[in-house]
Amino acid sequence: MSLVVVGSLAYDAVETPHGKVDRMLGGSCTYVSVAASFFSPVSIVGVVGDDFAEEDVQLLQGRGIDVEGVERVPGKTFFWSGVYSEDMNERTTLATDLNVFADFQPKLPASYKTKPYLFLGNIQPQLQKDVRRQMNGVRLAGGDTMNLWIEQTREPLLDTIKDWDFLLINDGEARMLSGEHNIKKTARAILEMGPKTLIIKRGEYGALLFHDDDVFSAPGYLLDSLHDPTGAGDCFAGGFMGYLSSRNVDLNDPAADRKELSRAVIYGSVMGSFCCERFGVERFRSLTRAEIDNRFQEFKSLTDF
Amino acid sequence: MSLVVVGSLAYDAVETPHGKVDRMLGGSCTYVSVAASFFSPVSIVGVVGDDFAEEDVQLLQGRGIDVEGVERVPGKTFFWSGVYSEDMNERTTLATDLNVFADFQPKLPASYKTKPYLFLGNIQPQLQKDVRRQMNGVRLAGGDTMNLWIEQTREPLLDTIKDWDFLLINDGEARMLSGEHNIKKTARAILEMGPKTLIIKRGEYGALLFHDDDVFSAPGYLLDSLHDPTGAGDCFAGGFMGYLSSRNVDLNDPAADRKELSRAVIYGSVMGSFCCERFGVERFRSLTRAEIDNRFQEFKSLTDF
Repeated sequence: MSLVVVGSLAYDAVETPHGKVDRMLGGSCTYVSVAASFFSPVSIVGVVGDDFAEEDVQLLQGRGIDVEGVERVPGKTFFWSGVYSEDMNERTTLATDLNVFADFQPKLPASYKTKPYLFLGNIQPQLQKDVRRQMNGVRLAGGDTMNLWIEQTREPLLDTIKDWDFLLINDGEARMLSGEHNIKKTARAILEMGPKTLIIKRGEYGALLFHDDDVFSAPGYLLDSLHDPTGAGDCFAGGFMGYLSSRNVDLNDPAADRKELSRAVIYGSVMGSFCCERFGVERFRSLTRAEIDNRFQEFKSLTDF
Repeated sequence: MSLVVVGSLAYDAVETPHGKVDRMLGGSCTYVSVAASFFSPVSIVGVVGDDFAEEDVQLLQGRGIDVEGVERVPGKTFFWSGVYSEDMNERTTLATDLNVFADFQPKLPASYKTKPYLFLGNIQPQLQKDVRRQMNGVRLAGGDTMNLWIEQTREPLLDTIKDWDFLLINDGEARMLSGEHNIKKTARAILEMGPKTLIIKRGEYGALLFHDDDVFSAPGYLLDSLHDPTGAGDCFAGGFMGYLSSRNVDLNDPAADRKELSRAVIYGSVMGSFCCERFGVERFRSLTRAEIDNRFQEFKSLTDF
């Protein structure tokens, strides 16, 4: 089936202990869609400035991504710059220039509105809600959020996620959103806010999936070398959502195979792990489906007892 | 088969957000042996003062633990006092009174020396080495260590662990010992120090097992409520070692079932999780083997995809 992804298209400058890149394609929409494109057809919605390079359009289209919903407006593309600490556990933002993204009003092409899967990348909750409303007959919709929206726009955020099938969030933000510390209580509190499925990302420690009373724990992949964690969470989302879309999973169908959800979390983990092996989306230029499936099997042997 | 455990026997005063206990049985030897006793016969080596309560001896003996190797000397039993932070992620030590433990020279009863399994709890590396040397024909020996010994007695520690079959250590200490940050590099560096098997404990995030080129990742159990984490790492060790002993596992046998090692890590995780449900060893007074096996199955469903 087909998937719509909304989020930011950006240029990033990133420095890690492994090197420095002054300008590379980034943004949540980029990472989610590139990762998802290994599983499912993807159509994206976003905004770029007149500096957005043709080769980056070609990179997306080369992965079969439908860019009809990408608006090009005068001005500069969203720019973000950050530097990672020596152990990569901390990240300092040096610059966030919203540029054309400041006035982003997502408009869905007519051909997008009947697609069955929707992923709402980390943008203002009101915009996420607006996009959700433009879709007709979505089978599965959900997305991501961040500390900024939890702190500054809590009510609109709650009003937005109550209609989502799933929420994908990192552990610190999950605790912030729920006001709980214990992770089970955190999950219970968030599931009461509306989403029937919750995925809590824990960085190098993997991810947790909560669905009704079921819990699934995915391990973190042990990387030989972590080059650049930028976008790993979004690639997780792309693998997760791309897999569900490829398998036509309907979370609201009581007869649905619950295991598919867990497998989607593993495919998310797989795509997040590949993302970290190179700067930006570099790793995805050469990645093959066979490598993805091999790593899926590595997760099997990593957890088998 | 039968297991010898060496370590501290202590009284602890502990305060957590769930309550406060002024004096309760503790110490690495206590936790390891009580947890292991659910799987295998256990004989312990340690020292206590004349204040060591008869009811605590009975608690150990009630679990079938052989206390012949516990020396009682004039003076007070080792006393430790600590307080946990609101989120339980930090622990402040308020008092460490070594008392009779300061002059502890482990002496193994003759009946202990031919037992096949040995666990060396977290005591001075020189003493651990000395105990290892007193044993004849041990099939599997290993133990734990801590930041204090890594920082203050690095050379004796390296000289001690080089003869161990396995080392059990937490992630921060593993990084300190190896000088690496990346967890795979950390493991590789430690395996080169001698132990053929390494278990890295990661608290609420579970544990990693490294054995040759195999890696196994055990998830953390999601507790409804964490009452007191004191002793959880030692109970992990007890479950791990008790299970290996009960299954007669020989890590040096090339034909050994590798899966048994992973299962031992899960039983370790099971025992560590039960430990946290009550203060001290309280949970083990009522714990049954059926509850242990049920939780083992919970780990199965938690990781199945």
